[in-house]
Amino acid sequence: MHKGRLEALSDGVIAIIITIMVLEMKVPHTDNLHDLKELWPVFLSYILSFIYVGIYWNNHHHMMQAARTVNGAVLWANLHLLFWLSLVPFASGWLGENHFTAWPMALYGFVLMMNAIAYSILVITLLRLHGKDSLLGRAIGKDWKGRLSVIIYAVAIVLTCVAPWLSLGLYVAVAGIWLVPDRRIESKITEQD
Amino acid sequence: MHKGRLEALSDGVIAIIITIMVLEMKVPHTDNLHDLKELWPVFLSYILSFIYVGIYWNNHHHMMQAARTVNGAVLWANLHLLFWLSLVPFASGWLGENHFTAWPMALYGFVLMMNAIAYSILVITLLRLHGKDSLLGRAIGKDWKGRLSVIIYAVAIVLTCVAPWLSLGLYVAVAGIWLVPDRRIESKITEQD
Amino acid sequence: MHKGRLEALSDGVIAIIITIMVLEMKVPHTDNLHDLKELWPVFLSYILSFIYVGIYWNNHHHMMQAARTVNGAVLWANLHLLFWLSLVPFASGWLGENHFTAWPMALYGFVLMMNAIAYSILVITLLRLHGKDSLLGRAIGKDWKGRLSVIIYAVAIVLTCVAPWLSLGLYVAVAGIWLVPDRRIESKITEQD
Amino acid sequence: MHKGRLEALSDGVIAIIITIMVLEMKVPHTDNLHDLKELWPVFLSYILSFIYVGIYWNNHHHMMQAARTVNGAVLWANLHLLFWLSLVPFASGWLGENHFTAWPMALYGFVLMMNAIAYSILVITLLRLHGKDSLLGRAIGKDWKGRLSVIIYAVAIVLTCVAPWLSLGLYVAVAGIWLVPDRRIESKITEQD
Repeated sequence: MHKGRLEALSDGVIAIIITIMVLEMKVPHTDNLHDLKELWPVFLSYILSFIYVGIYWNNHHHMMQAARTVNGAVLWANLHLLFWLSLVPFASGWLGENHFTAWPMALYGFVLMMNAIAYSILVITLLRLHGKDSLLGRAIGKDWKGRLSVIIYAVAIVLTCVAPWLSLGLYVAVAGIWLVPDRRIESKITEQD
Repeated sequence: MHKGRLEALSDGVIAIIITIMVLEMKVPHTDNLHDLKELWPVFLSYILSFIYVGIYWNNHHHMMQAARTVNGAVLWANLHLLFWLSLVPFASGWLGENHFTAWPMALYGFVLMMNAIAYSILVITLLRLHGKDSLLGRAIGKDWKGRLSVIIYAVAIVLTCVAPWLSLGLYVAVAGIWLVPDRRIESKITEQD
Repeated sequence: MHKGRLEALSDGVIAIIITIMVLEMKVPHTDNLHDLKELWPVFLSYILSFIYVGIYWNNHHHMMQAARTVNGAVLWANLHLLFWLSLVPFASGWLGENHFTAWPMALYGFVLMMNAIAYSILVITLLRLHGKDSLLGRAIGKDWKGRLSVIIYAVAIVLTCVAPWLSLGLYVAVAGIWLVPDRRIESKITEQD
Repeated sequence: MHKGRLEALSDGVIAIIITIMVLEMKVPHTDNLHDLKELWPVFLSYILSFIYVGIYWNNHHHMMQAARTVNGAVLWANLHLLFWLSLVPFASGWLGENHFTAWPMALYGFVLMMNAIAYSILVITLLRLHGKDSLLGRAIGKDWKGRLSVIIYAVAIVLTCVAPWLSLGLYVAVAGIWLVPDRRIESKITEQD
């Protein structure tokens, strides 16, 4: 089966997630700078979430480029990922509205962790379809980034009861790990061509 | 006529429906767990509706893959389906807001039933264009799933006056029937290639 | 230049317009049938607007299928059409909120008329690029439907001060004229192939 | 790597930005003309922002048409541009809500300037990938428009403390400079073919 519509639906959902998050920044009713400044936590959480969604799109793009075909299981694994991605604006909005306190920070971490798990499931489903010796299999390898992220998220969620800002630091750190797109995929594709 | 834009518009509308439903979960203004917990009926109805919309997208994807071409009638049958799909967020929101009481449950069932009918009409329009001996015709066959769903929905709508939670059980059951994408289409396409 | 992205942007905007209109139907906070019934004018205006947007998408789809290429002028003529289409949810919402009274009815007609004019401009821009003897030129012909619609809209707008419901009848009538997609284009394309 | 999904995500985000901006025009609850007229500043800022987003889409379309391939750096440069584009509805809404006073005017200019800078970064990233002698390199040339725009925006932002309407005039002027899509790209592509 063709992968075109899976990519199209994912692009659509991700495009809307990005734009919905910005709606959490309500336009102030007055025109002074003070009311604009009050939006900084919402803006900060928007930047972080934008980067996270951007990372997922970027890696999704790289991985699907190496994929040759999809099946029903891949479609559902992808929908499962989109489900957790769709909860990012909610978690991000709660985080920004409450100035990064413990519970919103924990929920944000939980949603990020579920996203990481959903992405790993998608990777596994794709690998089962293509085989380990395929272009995709060789490009992805052991997926240590995915496993490490889940562990860091779990630690960060526990830390929210003690030090929410430390959790935020960990979320930023994981984003840093992923910010560089999987160069292996890029190089394997070039190699192949 | 090419089927590309019909798929693109459907993907777009479905992507937005998914993301709009999540907007029904309003970000709580406080940061405690209690206010978050109050959202569970909205979240539950979101999960159910997400799965339903996912099922429609999945089956639409499978069916259109087997289709070779479209005409004006197919375009309108598809728009008709999108119309009823676009009402899912409204029905889902009403259901979640009122904790699964009778009337919202009946409306939800009605919208699901109209979706099932609209999908059947789309199937019929496509079959008329391709013929019963086409790849599409052999892959779809008698569409007993579609007919059975409509009957179950009708029963569930009547049951809402007596036992709304039983109706919910029936909606979940129908989702279960459809969750497995039409393997026949997948196998016929593989066969053809 | 390729027409792909013009189609993609148009599909995206139209998909969102459809889904935004449904947001005008606010989920009632109670679960009784009475509050649901109060939404009928909003629902009615949603149906009418959905059909209108569907007509535009359908005809846009038919016309762009016959087009071979686009240029800067076509891109802007298309954006101009999307601008007026994007005002349909606003006009539709005002109409539904105020139970089809005079001013909202006039604004609705005005937006529809501007859409018709914008569509005609797009047709002219495309014809200038392709020439009158092209597939597109022969398929579109004199565009009498477009001209007739503008005249009917103008009459309907004037009529709103006297009889708003008559204006609504005229809007429905124009939708009827357009509901059948341009069969000429379909037949010319088939002929060509 | 293929450029298809970069274009698809950009089209999706831009389509949603356009349609979200129109949501800033809240449907009046009464049906008289007076309340509709009160919306004129919001409508005016919508028109200006629509034209700006249209310009970006148009030039993005032209530039990507000349591009042959993308890499990770281009994907992120593009996401960076989408980030600043996604803030246009917010800045536009604040401008319209407050009738074009100083601070909203300055923020609007700042967002436009950041968009211009992000677009220049995207241009540079693409040129680095394709080389100066490529079709893209010859078509874009020195990008004087991009540099001039940033300077005018900076002047306009400073002017907001003195004469906000003059700033608005400068924003309109920059739009005028860009309204004509890069004909050089169009002519170079035609030449190439």
